[in-house]
Amino acid sequence: MHSFASDNYAGVHPDVLAAIGAVNAGHQRSYGYDPVTAEAEELFRAHFGRHAEAYFVANGTAANVLSLQAVLRPYQAVICAESAHINTDECGAPERYLGCKLIDLPTPDGKLTVDLLDARVSGRADEHQVQPAAVAITQSTELGTRYSLAEVRAIADWAHARGMALHVDGARLANAATGLGVGLGEASAGCGADVLSFGGTKNGLMGGEAVVFLRPGLGAHFRYHRKQAMQLVPKMRYVAAQFRALLTDDLWRRNAEHANAMAARLAAGVAGVEGVRITHPVEANAVFAVLPAEAVPVLQEVSQFYVWDERSSEVRWMTSFDTTEKDVDAFAEAVRRVVA
Amino acid sequence: MHSFASDNYAGVHPDVLAAIGAVNAGHQRSYGYDPVTAEAEELFRAHFGRHAEAYFVANGTAANVLSLQAVLRPYQAVICAESAHINTDECGAPERYLGCKLIDLPTPDGKLTVDLLDARVSGRADEHQVQPAAVAITQSTELGTRYSLAEVRAIADWAHARGMALHVDGARLANAATGLGVGLGEASAGCGADVLSFGGTKNGLMGGEAVVFLRPGLGAHFRYHRKQAMQLVPKMRYVAAQFRALLTDDLWRRNAEHANAMAARLAAGVAGVEGVRITHPVEANAVFAVLPAEAVPVLQEVSQFYVWDERSSEVRWMTSFDTTEKDVDAFAEAVRRVVA
Amino acid sequence: MHSFASDNYAGVHPDVLAAIGAVNAGHQRSYGYDPVTAEAEELFRAHFGRHAEAYFVANGTAANVLSLQAVLRPYQAVICAESAHINTDECGAPERYLGCKLIDLPTPDGKLTVDLLDARVSGRADEHQVQPAAVAITQSTELGTRYSLAEVRAIADWAHARGMALHVDGARLANAATGLGVGLGEASAGCGADVLSFGGTKNGLMGGEAVVFLRPGLGAHFRYHRKQAMQLVPKMRYVAAQFRALLTDDLWRRNAEHANAMAARLAAGVAGVEGVRITHPVEANAVFAVLPAEAVPVLQEVSQFYVWDERSSEVRWMTSFDTTEKDVDAFAEAVRRVVA
Amino acid sequence: MHSFASDNYAGVHPDVLAAIGAVNAGHQRSYGYDPVTAEAEELFRAHFGRHAEAYFVANGTAANVLSLQAVLRPYQAVICAESAHINTDECGAPERYLGCKLIDLPTPDGKLTVDLLDARVSGRADEHQVQPAAVAITQSTELGTRYSLAEVRAIADWAHARGMALHVDGARLANAATGLGVGLGEASAGCGADVLSFGGTKNGLMGGEAVVFLRPGLGAHFRYHRKQAMQLVPKMRYVAAQFRALLTDDLWRRNAEHANAMAARLAAGVAGVEGVRITHPVEANAVFAVLPAEAVPVLQEVSQFYVWDERSSEVRWMTSFDTTEKDVDAFAEAVRRVVA
Repeated sequence: MHSFASDNYAGVHPDVLAAIGAVNAGHQRSYGYDPVTAEAEELFRAHFGRHAEAYFVANGTAANVLSLQAVLRPYQAVICAESAHINTDECGAPERYLGCKLIDLPTPDGKLTVDLLDARVSGRADEHQVQPAAVAITQSTELGTRYSLAEVRAIADWAHARGMALHVDGARLANAATGLGVGLGEASAGCGADVLSFGGTKNGLMGGEAVVFLRPGLGAHFRYHRKQAMQLVPKMRYVAAQFRALLTDDLWRRNAEHANAMAARLAAGVAGVEGVRITHPVEANAVFAVLPAEAVPVLQEVSQFYVWDERSSEVRWMTSFDTTEKDVDAFAEAVRRVVA
Repeated sequence: MHSFASDNYAGVHPDVLAAIGAVNAGHQRSYGYDPVTAEAEELFRAHFGRHAEAYFVANGTAANVLSLQAVLRPYQAVICAESAHINTDECGAPERYLGCKLIDLPTPDGKLTVDLLDARVSGRADEHQVQPAAVAITQSTELGTRYSLAEVRAIADWAHARGMALHVDGARLANAATGLGVGLGEASAGCGADVLSFGGTKNGLMGGEAVVFLRPGLGAHFRYHRKQAMQLVPKMRYVAAQFRALLTDDLWRRNAEHANAMAARLAAGVAGVEGVRITHPVEANAVFAVLPAEAVPVLQEVSQFYVWDERSSEVRWMTSFDTTEKDVDAFAEAVRRVVA
Repeated sequence: MHSFASDNYAGVHPDVLAAIGAVNAGHQRSYGYDPVTAEAEELFRAHFGRHAEAYFVANGTAANVLSLQAVLRPYQAVICAESAHINTDECGAPERYLGCKLIDLPTPDGKLTVDLLDARVSGRADEHQVQPAAVAITQSTELGTRYSLAEVRAIADWAHARGMALHVDGARLANAATGLGVGLGEASAGCGADVLSFGGTKNGLMGGEAVVFLRPGLGAHFRYHRKQAMQLVPKMRYVAAQFRALLTDDLWRRNAEHANAMAARLAAGVAGVEGVRITHPVEANAVFAVLPAEAVPVLQEVSQFYVWDERSSEVRWMTSFDTTEKDVDAFAEAVRRVVA
Repeated sequence: MHSFASDNYAGVHPDVLAAIGAVNAGHQRSYGYDPVTAEAEELFRAHFGRHAEAYFVANGTAANVLSLQAVLRPYQAVICAESAHINTDECGAPERYLGCKLIDLPTPDGKLTVDLLDARVSGRADEHQVQPAAVAITQSTELGTRYSLAEVRAIADWAHARGMALHVDGARLANAATGLGVGLGEASAGCGADVLSFGGTKNGLMGGEAVVFLRPGLGAHFRYHRKQAMQLVPKMRYVAAQFRALLTDDLWRRNAEHANAMAARLAAGVAGVEGVRITHPVEANAVFAVLPAEAVPVLQEVSQFYVWDERSSEVRWMTSFDTTEKDVDAFAEAVRRVVA
């Protein structure tokens, strides 16, 4: 069964599975003090810059929350898009663990802009209000859109000018970088990000996300933060081996490129169908579309996917590294048939 | 390289690795709504009783903290041994996440007793003091000792008579149950435990621990607790597959039995050596011994292990499912040679 | 000096000051176990219903946060107006202490409505999203407006139908009840509120707010909650004496009535002045108005007040129990003079 | 009625009550931006040194917790005596709000020593353990004893040599300073304290405690910390007026001196009574004594007091600024009569 429900419905890329098996011999120091982890960390420096410090955690929520912990005090706030994963899909983990408020701004396409930031942020600085100390963007966004490098840079500059940090939720940074035609470092540190959640799970890993500190000094307390936050995995070599595989021989790019291409193919395949409207530019591995409400359950029988907005009958179709052209074409054909 | 440093220095049991590979085909619902997870949950009910509810989390610290969340309000406290993992090796995660105080009692051997509990707990119940609401024991203990079933039952009765819950940190429950000659359920629910952290990582898994609610109703809010606590793993089938393997064909018991036997063999191998004193009964997979201080670094060249107490020159030797008789015999021989 | 800056710039009503002095003789049990506190609690039952349980805390932020603690688990959320004090003026205390998310809805006048609630709340109930468990309204609102009893009842019914609780931030409940021509109980418990923050400080007390549980059972753990939240005042008789004075001989009503009348007088005094626009109905003790920007600093020399919105040059004028007709008339005259 | 139950059973000193009344005229800025608060802050600098920054909070628990917040990160720990108020009488507020662990050491007399600290603190510094970052002592202690200046200095030096801060819970600092014959500054900043909770309530105030930062820079974020911690009192002038009175004309010393003298008188009055054993040096305003168990309820009819330890029949008698010689003599006489 293939589905268009989520890129984390996919399995593990065969190279990653092999990499796990390859590190299984003998005893190794636990908690990340092993040579496999050291090699993976070195690869992060190669991709993100020599000051980059990468630490592995169990999932994307943890990566986001612990990234933000490094740049926020509890009375401070993080500004994000209303559609941000930290705001809508982490069950309040940022508030619960950081004690911080999220200031969420409505956006048309999941992307913050300097204009939106300007309009919301007052100059008021007194003890009655939380004080914004970070801007968090998602690249590529939860709506399948993508910031240009200049857009990220503009937000970074805006934040830095106000003493704030820029956090990038890069659960799908690979999809964005691929689409932009740049490397992972150019897509993050290169345009001003201070701290990054780098996602592996949605791009072919079994499980593992990385907190990557791009500005020197931010990671000073992280080993303690991670342990106290219940995020220190004992047999770290198995997480590190996955990242080592992902960052070797462009596997991250090949996987993301394929997923993006499949999304583009699906969008093309349903373009022009009467009754189907693509709602956001398809710039990563997701297609958002409004369908006739009665078509939705019929199509969900063909292939699983999620309804994004019940009221407008908007749905989300995600592709992944293992989506095939055949999967896409069959599903596009079904859309055409069912909607017509 | 083999080491006696920790049972989490070991790799993954081959059957577990195979089990991971076996679930890799195709797409599956994420976040634990997949058939592999359902099967693993069913196996937990088979082992722990039909009311048992098992939920997977990323590591032992998380399993302990989230287990306790179900039975504690923030103004309440948990009573534990001073040597308990929650007290000494979780970087304050229980205090940080639960907001609760730990009341830690010194013990000679890592084991709480009804007498120790009686001596510490006053009848005072006013708003100035935290109110104990749970007793937490570790089975087998951090010192390689083991509670008898009657000892656990007595503590459970003591706790229940006072409206408290009994939590068992079962990071090494398999080692205890094996030693006691009983099943996992008899070693936990069967002697009164209300909630259990069941460890897999130290017994041959790649990574995965389970929170197991043994008393009906305790798990009511757990899905939210787990997600908010940053412990929800997306591709859950790979964790579930490991537990399914562990709980099938007695793999849990075979692994634990072997590790226990290797510890006993090591203890026997150094018994009677002048200058070596075993400090705790060897009832699971650990040997604690006092050595001449100058012997320690020499022996650590032979095989890695941790110094437990610098002042008394007490060391800890852990065995695991993959420790061989040859490993043990060579190391015991080294101890005899170096100490003599 | 009189100011229109805030009702907490005012001093203490003479009857309240006298009441404090009157309880100063001899020793009394501390922490609220004294007879003055018992009498004050009884008065709360007289006003709010025989099941009402009142507990005193240090300030309004604490009253709001601890009220909400009784009806929320950390993974749950509270829905409030964007302009709510808990959202804008408590420095993130609700998020910090409760670990909860606030879901804030824009409103034209500081008032939630059933339509606004319906539009925002989806039926989605899964572990990825916080789950709304309370609606919080402010009565009278931060914008000087007031809910009718029917409006409160409608929100209460909406909340209860979904298993949610209704919290009322009653920092100025007296002003609302007076304006509605009803008692404090009718304005809260009587229209469905489950838990109330009852404010005294803005209505003539030296300092003291009350958490009032209106639904039986909600206060079960409150003594522990209050102590752990650092809100237990040792010499409680001095707080209780203030509330006893406020709830005796209608002092609460007389003070609020006067403040409301002064706001109405001020609004009337500036009505029709070219260049001055009253922006919200004047239904309590606040007047919001847009002025020419250049008039603001000139008028602030006459009497202190706050600019509410720099961009639109909207200001807030608060009246209090000790505002005199002369204060109002002189200031209205100044407005007319300066703006003209 | 007079009691020996607690120094917070006492009322308000007449000078303090008068001081409250004296600031009641007119409007003042709230939240501590008023001239009375500025004057009180200046007095703190006069007593504690020109770098001292004082901030008022609602009670002693808050003063302790918020003092510690300035010197601790959540993964760090504070070392204190087992009998410390923060450990036994704050309902877990430090753990709940700071997320920190308390490392509590048993002491014979409520006083930490360098030897006790040395014996407990290992050099181990890894992410599995909380890291001690502060030592907290109580001066005078909860057991009525008192550190010498040299003892405090030795602990301060020990802490500073390890990069830790010294916190002093000075709920009864006045009683200690008086007994030592020094000023408040000599008793705190002068012997190395970095941050202080300075108590007023137990020494004749109606209500009010101060967080006093003695090392420059520690107070940088405190206004936000206090507000977010629900500790910002709106009408601050009434708290400030109390402290201004206490720190003027040696009222703090006169009150403390009297209370200390009354404790000494009581101890002298029961000395030598067969069956009564004073258990701790009487160095402040408390007398601890073991009595025959059957005498306790009889004496509690004469005057209220608390049993400190049910098992050993140890009781605590507290004196306060308003205890009279007649009160003491009558009670000592009752002790002699009842025990004989």
